[in-house]
Amino acid sequence: MSSFVTHLEAAIDGTKLPHDRLQTTHEGRPLWVRYDLEAVGRAVTRDAVERREPALWRYRELLPVERDENVVTLGEGMSPLLPCPRLGAELGLDRLWIKDESQLPTGSFKSRGLCMAVSRAKELGVKRLAIPTAGNAGGALAAYAARAGLEAWVFLPADTPEVNQIEALLAGARVFRVDGLITDCAAIVAAGKEPMGWFDCSTLKEPYRIEGKKTMGLELAEQFGWKLPAAILYPTGGGTGLIGMWKAFAELDELGWLADAARPRMFACQSSGCDPIVRAFDADERFADPVADAHTVASGLRVPKAVGDFMILDAVRASGGAARRAPEDELVGWTRRANALEGIAVCPEAAACLAVLADLVGEGAIARDEDVVVFNTGAAQKYVEALRAEPPELPATGSPETIDWDALAAT
Amino acid sequence: MSSFVTHLEAAIDGTKLPHDRLQTTHEGRPLWVRYDLEAVGRAVTRDAVERREPALWRYRELLPVERDENVVTLGEGMSPLLPCPRLGAELGLDRLWIKDESQLPTGSFKSRGLCMAVSRAKELGVKRLAIPTAGNAGGALAAYAARAGLEAWVFLPADTPEVNQIEALLAGARVFRVDGLITDCAAIVAAGKEPMGWFDCSTLKEPYRIEGKKTMGLELAEQFGWKLPAAILYPTGGGTGLIGMWKAFAELDELGWLADAARPRMFACQSSGCDPIVRAFDADERFADPVADAHTVASGLRVPKAVGDFMILDAVRASGGAARRAPEDELVGWTRRANALEGIAVCPEAAACLAVLADLVGEGAIARDEDVVVFNTGAAQKYVEALRAEPPELPATGSPETIDWDALAAT
Repeated sequence: MSSFVTHLEAAIDGTKLPHDRLQTTHEGRPLWVRYDLEAVGRAVTRDAVERREPALWRYRELLPVERDENVVTLGEGMSPLLPCPRLGAELGLDRLWIKDESQLPTGSFKSRGLCMAVSRAKELGVKRLAIPTAGNAGGALAAYAARAGLEAWVFLPADTPEVNQIEALLAGARVFRVDGLITDCAAIVAAGKEPMGWFDCSTLKEPYRIEGKKTMGLELAEQFGWKLPAAILYPTGGGTGLIGMWKAFAELDELGWLADAARPRMFACQSSGCDPIVRAFDADERFADPVADAHTVASGLRVPKAVGDFMILDAVRASGGAARRAPEDELVGWTRRANALEGIAVCPEAAACLAVLADLVGEGAIARDEDVVVFNTGAAQKYVEALRAEPPELPATGSPETIDWDALAAT
Repeated sequence: MSSFVTHLEAAIDGTKLPHDRLQTTHEGRPLWVRYDLEAVGRAVTRDAVERREPALWRYRELLPVERDENVVTLGEGMSPLLPCPRLGAELGLDRLWIKDESQLPTGSFKSRGLCMAVSRAKELGVKRLAIPTAGNAGGALAAYAARAGLEAWVFLPADTPEVNQIEALLAGARVFRVDGLITDCAAIVAAGKEPMGWFDCSTLKEPYRIEGKKTMGLELAEQFGWKLPAAILYPTGGGTGLIGMWKAFAELDELGWLADAARPRMFACQSSGCDPIVRAFDADERFADPVADAHTVASGLRVPKAVGDFMILDAVRASGGAARRAPEDELVGWTRRANALEGIAVCPEAAACLAVLADLVGEGAIARDEDVVVFNTGAAQKYVEALRAEPPELPATGSPETIDWDALAAT
């Protein structure tokens, strides 16, 4: 099949651009992918989608890849939507859900956007991909580039979690540690585009990662029986997932697939150590100033300047939600609490949502009986430095018979 | 619903035991779970199964949990079956597949067995679970125990990969490092059963982990259109997955769900650093002697003595397969090669299968045009110590304009 894409559209001023060639940004701002939704509606039904393979490619008609042979896949998508009764009780909520993106390839939601970006790059003849990353995106690009047989160059802050560095190297990418933050890495990729022949896979600097992330919203609607929850808390670094979900809801509504068109309140959650979107939200600004001295154990939130700032803020405001910060020093505590209460490998980024959620419930901004969804964007297992802890060593007794069980019970 | 289980059956001598109470082993040997397959066949069809949620619980009628409210789930199962054309070409195979278990909760196949064991333990009133682990099983038990609200005690070798230690602690388990191997940990759990009131969740010392692992075989059949591949290579530590799949194939056959009843040749793959099953296979023995000085970077294969040795060897022999060893010093190389060629997060255990596969193809024991499935039992990201590598640091130039692109390209 070919795609139902009609054109690309500049998010800042609506300028139309053709989609049959490589595109990046317009006036330095991101592009939307637009579809002939009427034709999509004629081509496929909700029921047909529900019977397809449990992967994000079940939404094929709402995705931008033209030819099936260009689909680059590691089996991503259809992450579980898990009820969280214990964590909900602690937070004062009857219907708390975690959408667990840790079960995607490379253990994070980044695989959704990068399978789409790499598929389209391959389709349009790109051979060399480059990416700046705060952590998980680099590993995901490396994996999908390997899967596609393309070259990947990954630039990450020198203090990026070690697991992210290892996974990118393992997948055969050229990986470089940079003395700086993701914005410094982005400057290197931008500067090297011409001399190195790179295609820049930075989020929102190419049009398709957002389409991959959009599938989080499509899945959520399907999993709720084609309705939407009352509130979504989303850990916001670059914010592509939040923007993508908001776009998904609009497309589903236009298709007539939503049993109830009420949209969720969207809460963009950041850390007090890096909160540019929260500051802009509070100041009633549409664009966010870069944050100095960005620091947080939630490496994915260490994005001092988001290219899609206005798209995040537009969606949050249109939804009746808010941008909120969690105290940085509460992230590890919420990570541990969530893991221990629900057994879900909640990462520090998602922990920021939980801290914010506690405040929102306390303020009455979210009610006990609402359906509330928190996105767990990656596997806790990838955050070794932040979550390091050493179990006690049993004395080398040589024989279990000599163990003092009372002492063991008391440890 | 209630289950279709009729009884438990001792694997060593066929003794029947009731399933309505806690059971462990018989004469120190494992138990099979037996079902009324005729009744299962009347209750559900293949087609009905295919329309259910993409999780291992879609095979509900072939699983031992009695009441739905006792199902403890993190959304596990339906791992993707990924074609591997590049890796296949390197190995001389046209149809190589990896079943990627790294995309399950806690990033490993251990979640299949432990969701089942914890569900049944909960159903039968257990409050305190204990487990010896070589790595991933401890994290999985901790997660499911947390999900069920039960207490978990985890005993692991002191040099277990750090990620495994962290994940178990994060999920709230009581974790202890032991100066020894998994067999030493097992001895501690066994000795502490009475004084500590633990239920021993060691694989094959309770009857239900094997039923969870069985779903790998059920999924594989469904994903191949209710046929089976020609050969399966399975990294074999405790071997529960291999045993479980072999059981699954028999049950599917008896149900009449297989379009073609031909069974795969099963290859149990180990490392030269720990190869008890291979030694027993080569010596025509049904039981394996413990291996001394077991060592391998594939931590899941560091099982010097498997409780179900005879069950593994029976299945391997009945299938016309073999038990084979990979050279320990080739594991990291195959891990890197597979990750770079396919972008799949292949772990060192699965790398042992790839090394064995190269030999089997070379010997003509596996033909180019056969469907061959390798199980990737966990995420490479969890093996930090074995796969550690440090990317080069870009000189702190302060500005991307000063980067020497030619030098960068040459790194």
